[in-house]
Parts: sequence; C-alpha cells; structure tokens
Amino acid sequence: MNPLSPALTETHTPEPHHGLHEEGAELALRRIAIDTYRENVAYLHRDCAVYRAEGFQALSKIEVRSNDKRILASLNVVDDLALVGCHELGLSEDAFLQLGVEAGATVTVSQAEPPSSIGALHRKISGERLDAEDFKAIIRDIAALRYSKIELTAFVVATQRDELDREEVYFLTQAMVASGRKLDWHEPLVVDKHCIGGIPGNRTSMLVVPIVAAHGLLCPKTSSRAITSPAGTADTMEVLANVELPFELLADIVRQHRGCLAWGGTANLSPADDVLISVERPLGIDSAGQMVASILSKKIAAGSTHLVLDIPIGPTAKVRSMPDAQRLRRLFEYVAERMHLSLDVVITDGRQPVGNGIGAVLEARDVMRVLENDPRAPNDLRQKSLRLAGRLIECSPDVRGGDGFAIARDILDSGRALSKMNQIIKAQGMKSFDHNAPLLGKLSFDVTAQEGGVITGIDNLQLAKIARLAGSPKVIGAGVDLFKKLGTAVASGEVLYRVYAQYASDLLFAQQACQKTSGYSIGMPGEVPHVFVEF
Amino acid sequence: MNPLSPALTETHTPEPHHGLHEEGAELALRRIAIDTYRENVAYLHRDCAVYRAEGFQALSKIEVRSNDKRILASLNVVDDLALVGCHELGLSEDAFLQLGVEAGATVTVSQAEPPSSIGALHRKISGERLDAEDFKAIIRDIAALRYSKIELTAFVVATQRDELDREEVYFLTQAMVASGRKLDWHEPLVVDKHCIGGIPGNRTSMLVVPIVAAHGLLCPKTSSRAITSPAGTADTMEVLANVELPFELLADIVRQHRGCLAWGGTANLSPADDVLISVERPLGIDSAGQMVASILSKKIAAGSTHLVLDIPIGPTAKVRSMPDAQRLRRLFEYVAERMHLSLDVVITDGRQPVGNGIGAVLEARDVMRVLENDPRAPNDLRQKSLRLAGRLIECSPDVRGGDGFAIARDILDSGRALSKMNQIIKAQGMKSFDHNAPLLGKLSFDVTAQEGGVITGIDNLQLAKIARLAGSPKVIGAGVDLFKKLGTAVASGEVLYRVYAQYASDLLFAQQACQKTSGYSIGMPGEVPHVFVEF
Repeated sequence: MNPLSPALTETHTPEPHHGLHEEGAELALRRIAIDTYRENVAYLHRDCAVYRAEGFQALSKIEVRSNDKRILASLNVVDDLALVGCHELGLSEDAFLQLGVEAGATVTVSQAEPPSSIGALHRKISGERLDAEDFKAIIRDIAALRYSKIELTAFVVATQRDELDREEVYFLTQAMVASGRKLDWHEPLVVDKHCIGGIPGNRTSMLVVPIVAAHGLLCPKTSSRAITSPAGTADTMEVLANVELPFELLADIVRQHRGCLAWGGTANLSPADDVLISVERPLGIDSAGQMVASILSKKIAAGSTHLVLDIPIGPTAKVRSMPDAQRLRRLFEYVAERMHLSLDVVITDGRQPVGNGIGAVLEARDVMRVLENDPRAPNDLRQKSLRLAGRLIECSPDVRGGDGFAIARDILDSGRALSKMNQIIKAQGMKSFDHNAPLLGKLSFDVTAQEGGVITGIDNLQLAKIARLAGSPKVIGAGVDLFKKLGTAVASGEVLYRVYAQYASDLLFAQQACQKTSGYSIGMPGEVPHVFVEF
Repeated sequence: MNPLSPALTETHTPEPHHGLHEEGAELALRRIAIDTYRENVAYLHRDCAVYRAEGFQALSKIEVRSNDKRILASLNVVDDLALVGCHELGLSEDAFLQLGVEAGATVTVSQAEPPSSIGALHRKISGERLDAEDFKAIIRDIAALRYSKIELTAFVVATQRDELDREEVYFLTQAMVASGRKLDWHEPLVVDKHCIGGIPGNRTSMLVVPIVAAHGLLCPKTSSRAITSPAGTADTMEVLANVELPFELLADIVRQHRGCLAWGGTANLSPADDVLISVERPLGIDSAGQMVASILSKKIAAGSTHLVLDIPIGPTAKVRSMPDAQRLRRLFEYVAERMHLSLDVVITDGRQPVGNGIGAVLEARDVMRVLENDPRAPNDLRQKSLRLAGRLIECSPDVRGGDGFAIARDILDSGRALSKMNQIIKAQGMKSFDHNAPLLGKLSFDVTAQEGGVITGIDNLQLAKIARLAGSPKVIGAGVDLFKKLGTAVASGEVLYRVYAQYASDLLFAQQACQKTSGYSIGMPGEVPHVFVEF
C-alpha cells in the first residue's frame, strides 16, 4: 500500500471553541492522600467539563502537565465533590510527588499518548524477541511510573519462564542498571555477597560483611526487607542498628569502616526492579531470567566489582536439583561476564533452614552468638558464613585460592569480626540488644515429636509460613526457634521447635498451620536426603 | 516427606487480647464515590488500629464481611481523615455495590484468603494445562470481582497466543457461560449473527435482524458498544432507538416482534467476559482462543441455538490470510460442536470498510437507506446483509439450502424488512432520525486524491482511527463518509472522503492523522488485491 499525503480542503471553518477544547484544559491540582502503591492515579469528577469534553473513560491514561513537568496517570472517575471538585484534578500520593508541583497549582490534562515503549511491550506479548533499545525503552517507562498495573503485569508474565533468551536477559539487566543511579566507590575492588533466597534464617551476610570488612575489603552491603520470607537481612539488622540511612551517611560509614549493612531503599538503585517486584511477588513469579536481571542489576548499580552468589539447593529450596542449579549458574555467569562483573557462584546446602532462629530477633541472636564465639552459636550458620567470606576474601589479588576460609576463621575466632560489627552498629545507630536475653514475643507454644527416630526432612516453605503467621517480620520478636536439625535423633515427646508470637490471633493462625503439618519428617537415618555441593 | 500432626504444648497461655486482634475487627462502612472500573478497592486510614494490627500492606487483598455477605478488595491506604476516618472502612463504587449493605453499617475486615482458584492461575502462568474445573473456578472468581487487575492481567497474558489448546478453549467457554445467566427462549430455533470485528461501518446486523424477524425467526440480538472501534451496533442503533432496555422489556419486544437490537449490558450474560475485555483491550490482546470463548459464551448465554459467524479477511482486517481464517474457523466449529451450538462460519471480504459511513449517525443513515431501498444505499452493505440473512433463514427446516438469499431479498425489496425495523424501533423507544438530513458534526473537511488512478487500498485501521479522533462514537454525528471505494477510478482533486466532527480539537487531531496518511492508496487497476471468499 502506498499511502499519500492528502490535500485537505476545509468545507467548514471551525470557530474557535471555548477553552474546554483547546489542547490541555486547565484545572487546579489537588493532592489526594491515597497510597495507590506505585501506580499513578488521577481523579476527575464525572461532571467536570474537561472529563466530558475529552472523551476520557475510566482507566484511560491521561497526561498531566505543569509548565515543563509531565506525568502519566490512570484515571479514576469520582462522584463526590468533597473528594474532587469540578475544576480540580486529584492526584494520588505517588503521582503528586512525582509531578513535584504544589497543591492548588494550575495543571493541564489531555489524553496520553501511550508510553513510547508500548509497541515493544506488544511485540513481546506476541512472543517476539526484543533488542537492547526495546528493553531500555520499556524499563525507562516502568521506572518513571508510566506503566499501569495492567501493562506492568503483561510485561512480567510475557518475560517469565523461558520467554527471554540469555542475551535478552543481559539486555534487560543492562536496562535496569541504566534506569537508576549507579554508584562508584572509586576503588578497584568492591565486594558483595547475595543469596537467591528461599532458605529461612540464612543471615550469612551479617557475618560475611564484618569478616571481610575486618580484612580490609570494601563491602557496602545494601539489602531488602522481607517481601514473602519471614525476615530479610534489613529486618534482622534493624534489631541491632538503624538501617534506613540517608545515602550520604551510608557512604561515609562505608568509607570509614569498609562495610555497612543497610536498607537499600534510600539509594534508588535499579528503581525499575522495585516496581517489577511489586507485581512478581503477588503472582509468585520468580523465573530465572527475571531473577538474574533483578539481582545483578541491583549489585552492579550498587557499584560492586566482585560478587559471590549463593544458590542453595534442596527439596524445598527455590532450586530443587543440581541440573537446575547449573542452568541458573550459567545464566548468571553469562550476564555477569557481559556486564563486566566478576562473579563466583557457590551452590550450597538448602535442605533446611540455616541457623536456629527464624524471625528478626531470633536471627539476630544467632548472628551475635557466632560473632561472640558463643558455644550456643549454630554451627551451620558459622561454617557457611566462613566459607562464603573466604570466597570473597579470595577476590583480593594477594590471597591464594583456597586460603580464604582460614583467614576468615582467624578473623572470627580472634574477635576482629565482632569488633568490626560493633563499629558498624555504632556508626549506623545502635539499638540495645542482648543475645542472652533477646526480647521475644510473649506468647509461645512448642511443637514436639510424635515418635522417635531421626529428622529426615524440614520443610523450608512450611517453617517460613509458620513464622510469618506468628507475626514475623512485622513483629520482630515473633518467629520460630528450631531445637532439632536434619540428621538429629529425637525421642517421642522431645521439642522440635518453639513458636513465638506477640498477639493471640497470630499465635492461633500459627498453631493451625502447625496442626496441618509441622514441616518436620521423622524416619530412619538412611532417609536423610544427600546433598552434593561444593565447598 | 512424611509430615506429621504434632502435639502442641503451650508454654504460655495467651491472654484474651482486646478486640483488635480477634478475627475480624469491626469498622463502619463508608461509600467512597470513586469509580475504579471493575476492581474492588477498599480504603483504610494509615492510623486505623485495624490496619496497623492486621499487618496489612497497601495492595493486600482483604476480606470485607457484613453478616453473611463477603467481598474481596484491594487495599489502598489513606492519609486524610476527611476521606476515611480511623474507625471506618471505605469501599469504591463497584465494591460498595457488590457488598450490598448500607453506608454506616458495621463490617469486619481480615486478611483475605487468596481466591480459591489462585493455584490454578499459578499453574497456567507456569505453562501447565488446566482442566474444566480449573477454568470454572478461575472464571467464577473473575466474575465475582475477586481478582485484582494484576491477577486478571496475568490470566489474560498466560492464556493468549497458543497457550490454550482447543479443548481448553472449550473449557474456558463453558466456564464463561456458567459465570452468568443463560437465557432460554423456549423455542427450538433462536438465531443470531456475529462478526469478529475489525471492519468499520460493518452494520449488517441492523439489516439481518429485521429481515429474519420478518421471516418469522426469533432473533434476540444484543450487541456491545464500541471499545476500540469507531462504533458498535449498540452505538449505531442508539441513533434510531433506545438500546439500554431492562431485560424484561427486551424479552417482551422479542416475543412480540421476533427480534430486537439492544445493548447487552443489562442482561448479565457472560459477566466474566466484560471483566476480561477490560484488560484485553488496553493491551491489544485478541487471540483466537480468547476470541472464540468470548463470542461463543455471549451467544450461548443469550440463548442462541443457531449462529452465523462473519470472519472478514483482508490486508488490514483482523484476519489477514485464508489459512489463518480457516484455522480460526475450525476452532470456532470445534467449540461450538462441543457446546451444542449450530454454527455456520462465513468468510467475507474485509479489504475495506463496509458501506459508506463510519460513525453512528452516518452508519444509521446507510442502514435506513438500505431498508428504504433508496438508490443512494451502499450496495456492498445491502448485498452482504442479504447473504448473511439468507444463511440465517436457511436454518429453518422448511427452507432449502441456497434459497435463503432470494427470500431475504424479497423481504427487503417488498418493504417488509423496513416495516419490521420500524416496529422494533417503536417498541424500544423511537428517536427522531431522518436519513435525508442526518444530524452530523458541524465541522468537516474533505480529503482529496493527489493523483489520478484507481483506488487500490483502503486501510481499515487508519480510517477507524481517523473516525475515533474525529469524536466517534461519543459524538454520534462525528465520523467519516467515504465517497470512493476499492476499484473505483478517481481523478486528481476528487474527494475521497469527508470527515465530520463537532469540536475543533477533535477536527484538528483527525486532520493531523490524515496528513500523516489518508489511508487510501491509488494505483493501477491490476493492483487491487483479490479476495477469494465464498458466498
């Protein structure tokens, strides 16, 4: 088809129509104190002349302008003048803050052109392969809140499973780094450690950071709060010290003490990642490509040059088999290589929770006991942390391969790791905590073995669920304290674990879950599953 | 793993805690006049004791109960006591109406159990095949507004393209019929006609219904309003008569006159379809499986026993090639067979708009001119309508195959079709309309040929876009009037089409689109695309 530019002959000259129909009718901005959670929403009254003239339908995307500032928002129509008047435009909290203009200011609204990346989104929905520019455009729009929840979800579902080939995962990672700030610590070696998740109690970071920082490596660790797990590193660290630090303070602490354990939210690293996660988590979507892009983009944006990545495997871990773990490892290694990040993947034992405590206070107790070389410290947490810290220490050019573990162990045994942790805690803002008398939820119940035998299985998912029902992490003293681990012999009636809660309703929900299934299996010694992992 | 029921030993008896933490704390219901467009939203103040105690996070799903009524809603947190007080629960319009309880009543809120079908949704997202019970459960939850926009979008994206095999499409169709009411007209023959869409001006239904109703067949036609097209049958019929009829009135009219042309919204047929469409359309998703389920579920719910389905093909139609059309036809035929619907698929000429007018008033003019046997009536609209009406008439056991066209033509030529249409119009509630002087938008401009030759192409999508920019269908007198159709010779400077609008800004947008491309191609006679369709 050969489209032509036609000659246009006006048969009836349009009269200038009153202000309503000139492009961008004017309204007064009103801040609507509704938290719509990472989606821009605008509110117009149904009888507003602009709403009626422009042909907006509810959920249309509109463009809101004030001088040279523009945002996109989904439109909700309002039937109450007390909420929004006929000459007003309401904006939800996110949208109001993004526009950055004071309430009462004059704004103009018009039908939005779709975000420029929508064509690429539609191509990916149709199953086509996208290039680097496509991903940049999509992620730029996502980070700027130009996608509605519908468009965001479509992107997440259309890029899961094996819909992205490995080069597309690289493009996506690259685009996510480009969507926010990228830190530069001005040192040749900036180390970090990350776990893909799924193992309750796995707070190795809180030991690795003080150990490697005591050795002299720069380890500016930012972590997230728990989204679906019982506690995240940021939640557990917050028992010991402030974690929500202004970025400048975080940078000072790192320069002074070589490490920190802070919440990542203040640094605006990979902002698109947070928006994507807000959709991935409710849907239970966590595919390899998205996981790689999420983790590596955050680490690269944080300025890491060297990363040790922990992939636990086990029957109730995120990764269930060695072939799956190897596939995931290869994808991480491919993308890290393209992004010039030095990556060391360690496949670890994910058959059960790490340590004894699940929940912020209980985990903080375990961490402090390891640092203090307390005999009650959980040995698996200690050993795993030493091995991971050792791998990080081996990033130093002056350390021989294989020597890292011993160096890490010396740092821990000598108390230098404890000392470093106390420095970090003090610099971030100490909270009072005593691992001998931690402040736990005031209600509790014990779960005991129904028969004698050997612990042959501990269900990570069920234990995590019980800890969450008990109130973790919102209630920091809530959670589960494991008394018996895999391979241990138990007699009938012995306590397997104790659940702590603060509120009766939380305790009740946790009890109900335990009654369905405790998460523990007891059997014969030969039934304990094997794990073939490197160390 | 062999999970056990544990013995629970309470080590600390929980004291009864005050009312906040019993299951289901009480609040006063407040109606929030915000139209959140088919998604239930609940509003709690951030300082509300219930919000803080329950551990809700923004966008959690909560369950709202009043006596035995329950709904699910997504939570938005509010920071303004004027919007929602600390002892109140706000509900958006949809949610308030669904709960069906008066403002001020006491309601209880708690964390929602996920809708029961979420497991099936996750399985489909993971790429698994679902069974009939899965689809029933999902569609039941969707129709009851228990899915958030995120979950809805995930379902739509995970069931598009070839993600559903043909039996799953049948299960989906069955589930959609079961989600709403199903009409029974108590007659052995209830006929209907439907087009898959994509061809502007294609108002054959408004001719087919009066023709077949005049013959004596029961044809209770309900149609939708335009969602992305310039006009739907309901929009065009609304120029001539009321279309939003209470269901009982619609049923009376059908019994009395054998036919109607009404808006389908009052009958609550396949309610899940409307919810799904609210997500499919913004994303431009319209895959074969979803299309078949949508169309057939609506027709079966409407009580049709016999359906003639029009599938236009052409370079700018929804279906671009004969193999694609045949694939789609076979899927429709398979599902219709399983659902015991008698289906006749007709593949038609979709190379250009049907008729001359695009837009409600212009199309109504064309329809009335055909009915009045006016010489200005567009012949393609007349011919196509006769052929489709003939196929429907051949559903009668007393009509021989091939005789339907002649019968339909007689009904039209004799004026019986016009008479029947006037009866239907009067029964539904007549509006004044004169096809000799239709009330069109007061502004217009002409698009003329830049060179002489033959019309070799007319872009359905571009012409539809121009008509929408001009204001159609919200402005009923807006649209495009085509003066030249495919295969016609034109001289340079001759008018190809005229665009009507009511507002200057609409006219301007339409002009800008025409200037980019008129949608017409002019070339040599041999360049007119062929179409191999049956008739």
